[in-house]
Amino acid sequence: MTQSADVLVVGGGLAGLTAARDLLAAGRSVLVLEARDRVGGRIVNQQIGDGKIVEMGGQWAGPGQDRLLALAGDLGIATFPTYDTGQKVLHFNGRRGSYGGTIPRINPLVLADIGRAQARLEALAKKVPLDAPWTADRAEEWDAQTFQAWARKHTASAGARMLLALGAEAVFAAEPADLSMLHVLFYSHSGGSFQRLIDTTGGAQQDRFVGGSALIAEQLAGRLGTDVVRLGAAVSAISVTGDKVTADTAAGQFDGKRIIVTAPPLLAGRISYSPALPADREQLTQRAPMGSVIKCQAVYSEPFWRAEGLCGQATGDGEGSRVVFDNSPPDGSPGVLLAFVEGDEARRLGRQDPRTRRLAVLDSLVRYFGPKAASPDGYYELDWQTERWSGGCYGTLFGPNVWTRYGPALTRPAGPIHWAGTETSPVWCGYMDGAIRSGERAAATVHAELG
Amino acid sequence: MTQSADVLVVGGGLAGLTAARDLLAAGRSVLVLEARDRVGGRIVNQQIGDGKIVEMGGQWAGPGQDRLLALAGDLGIATFPTYDTGQKVLHFNGRRGSYGGTIPRINPLVLADIGRAQARLEALAKKVPLDAPWTADRAEEWDAQTFQAWARKHTASAGARMLLALGAEAVFAAEPADLSMLHVLFYSHSGGSFQRLIDTTGGAQQDRFVGGSALIAEQLAGRLGTDVVRLGAAVSAISVTGDKVTADTAAGQFDGKRIIVTAPPLLAGRISYSPALPADREQLTQRAPMGSVIKCQAVYSEPFWRAEGLCGQATGDGEGSRVVFDNSPPDGSPGVLLAFVEGDEARRLGRQDPRTRRLAVLDSLVRYFGPKAASPDGYYELDWQTERWSGGCYGTLFGPNVWTRYGPALTRPAGPIHWAGTETSPVWCGYMDGAIRSGERAAATVHAELG
Repeated sequence: MTQSADVLVVGGGLAGLTAARDLLAAGRSVLVLEARDRVGGRIVNQQIGDGKIVEMGGQWAGPGQDRLLALAGDLGIATFPTYDTGQKVLHFNGRRGSYGGTIPRINPLVLADIGRAQARLEALAKKVPLDAPWTADRAEEWDAQTFQAWARKHTASAGARMLLALGAEAVFAAEPADLSMLHVLFYSHSGGSFQRLIDTTGGAQQDRFVGGSALIAEQLAGRLGTDVVRLGAAVSAISVTGDKVTADTAAGQFDGKRIIVTAPPLLAGRISYSPALPADREQLTQRAPMGSVIKCQAVYSEPFWRAEGLCGQATGDGEGSRVVFDNSPPDGSPGVLLAFVEGDEARRLGRQDPRTRRLAVLDSLVRYFGPKAASPDGYYELDWQTERWSGGCYGTLFGPNVWTRYGPALTRPAGPIHWAGTETSPVWCGYMDGAIRSGERAAATVHAELG
Repeated sequence: MTQSADVLVVGGGLAGLTAARDLLAAGRSVLVLEARDRVGGRIVNQQIGDGKIVEMGGQWAGPGQDRLLALAGDLGIATFPTYDTGQKVLHFNGRRGSYGGTIPRINPLVLADIGRAQARLEALAKKVPLDAPWTADRAEEWDAQTFQAWARKHTASAGARMLLALGAEAVFAAEPADLSMLHVLFYSHSGGSFQRLIDTTGGAQQDRFVGGSALIAEQLAGRLGTDVVRLGAAVSAISVTGDKVTADTAAGQFDGKRIIVTAPPLLAGRISYSPALPADREQLTQRAPMGSVIKCQAVYSEPFWRAEGLCGQATGDGEGSRVVFDNSPPDGSPGVLLAFVEGDEARRLGRQDPRTRRLAVLDSLVRYFGPKAASPDGYYELDWQTERWSGGCYGTLFGPNVWTRYGPALTRPAGPIHWAGTETSPVWCGYMDGAIRSGERAAATVHAELG
């Protein structure tokens, strides 16, 4: 028994839910096919007791993320500022320090070195056309090298290279050698600037959502209803016959006139297509790995660091977590430290047992915040690397020679098959805001096609 | 109704068939689960009339490929030398020339430049331990850069860089910026040297098999029998429960005590695993794209180039095919030119219709061999980029930061799940010989484990 709708949507994250919303509003019938038993994709809440939550996936909103903020506003979900009052902690070369403002207290030669490299990066980023990065004048040159190779050439100090690596880890959950220089430039431009991607106040980590970011997906799905959003419906095959497209799923067969695949290219590539996809689309999906991150949250009875004049943000060059935020609920109770384990550390600790991982993370929190950090009341982790229906987080990484060789295949439809998801958004690519934009774009295109 | 055997083998290419042969010989029961309706994987024959064939996939044997030659010998399949008599053709910068021996007649400064770069590459390759490339002293440095970045640094002329690109295309079906320098060094060492990989006589293209390379797989499968080798049995899921491993396939369910997955990492990653694979294995499969090649064969009533003193081998820097061989049957009738379309050209022409592709390839053959090449009696092509059960050819490409971050996950078993396939072979990785070696290794390991 095959169920039918005008449009099938693969994936019940923000891209898919947004596309469904817009198509329904335009009078189309829609079915959203979601593999997991929940909506939200890479955003998910974790209950921590007393009705409080922490976010285990994407969580922040920042200036310029207009579509995300508009959607949350529509749904009546409020934002509150990420805790950003007090000094930041830095742990480099075995020494701990703290600083206010945005300029860390480190060797001024290293500061000047990283400043020059970043200024150069920001200037180059502006030259990458967001709709078609492969058309940048120097696209070939930038796409033929890793960000690491570029950094080696344009920095003088190991300290500056370490800071660039920390930036890559924080923004991409990857190391500089995982990334094409062209991808780094595109991604920075897509979010405004590299600085904006790493900033808290004024940047991509500025605000949080009361009740957690996952509320956005949950409430949007609630409005669509369970007739529209089908959970446990992992799509294994998509076949096109005549003017019909059919999806085989774990929850039965569905057909429609069009299908919008919102899964990241990696996972879209794991669906079996009949007829086969065009060569460039197939090979693109082979070259779209996901980032490496384990998101950890340590819960304390109170945010003890605040009383010590610290904002809870920390960074360092050691093992465990190298990027930490205060992730306490709006009322500051309980105190929560969000500890990212990213890039090489996610790979290394991903091979260890959970106890070893937890110890490594808490050891790093102790380095930043002292012995009180050693004994949280609660501890939660999510290793996105082993999540079957994400493949990793935060998003897709393009290594060398992908944008220039396969860029157009990211969004070019294959017959009635359309592609969405944050990876396809020129603006805020990789972010929740980009996911929403991509869903809106795909819905408009499909609606127009259906006439 | 689940069918059982001691060992399940995923994939009926040379790796899987070899593993099955060895396990059966050791007294184990085995089932080979092959997705296609034929065995052979990346080797396949094409009938061209009168009982003659051409090879549309892997086809050559060379010195040092002892396991391949031994298997063919066991099966009574003879070899014959690749036609290598006469001058080679070169078409560079709009000019055609021909030459004997191995040194092309080009600008001596370019020759000296490419000679220095290649000598350096060969020396570095020897320093890469084949069992663990990530342990090379300079592994971090080599794996942080593309082959392209290295070539830019270590050549003085655009001509030398073009020749390195042609080498990369011929050996990897990829461009220098697709490849980690560490991967290029490993791969060269794995086959002996880069020179050996590109040579005909004395190298990896020295000999062919009478009746075509696919005979090896077909005859080996014939010996195993249809009870053992199941066609049309694409594996969609592998689950481990207790001491049993179960495979869901298009031809029903199978279980065993162990399973050997011989599909390349990309395709192994498209199987759904329960429980999830270890993080590093999962993420490795995301970073293992396949090469880009369209293999084309133009059939003429006779090998007209031979009468003109040409061996049928050609290379050039233009559109269409940049690497051509005489691929006529042993008796020289009919005449066949094998035209590889590789790397960027495979990407570009893969987006065109078959007629445009054919014209582009024949145009290039005319550049090399004159107007007679324009009108073949027969023409065959196989675009491996759209082959669902290969994903591309010749093999897996590692870009930067894969070997050093994920190398051990290439072969480390995940419980009862073992990995084989040519990509897992330290010796002749990427070649038919490596596939056989990997099957032998996996069979021995599994047999020992079963006690």
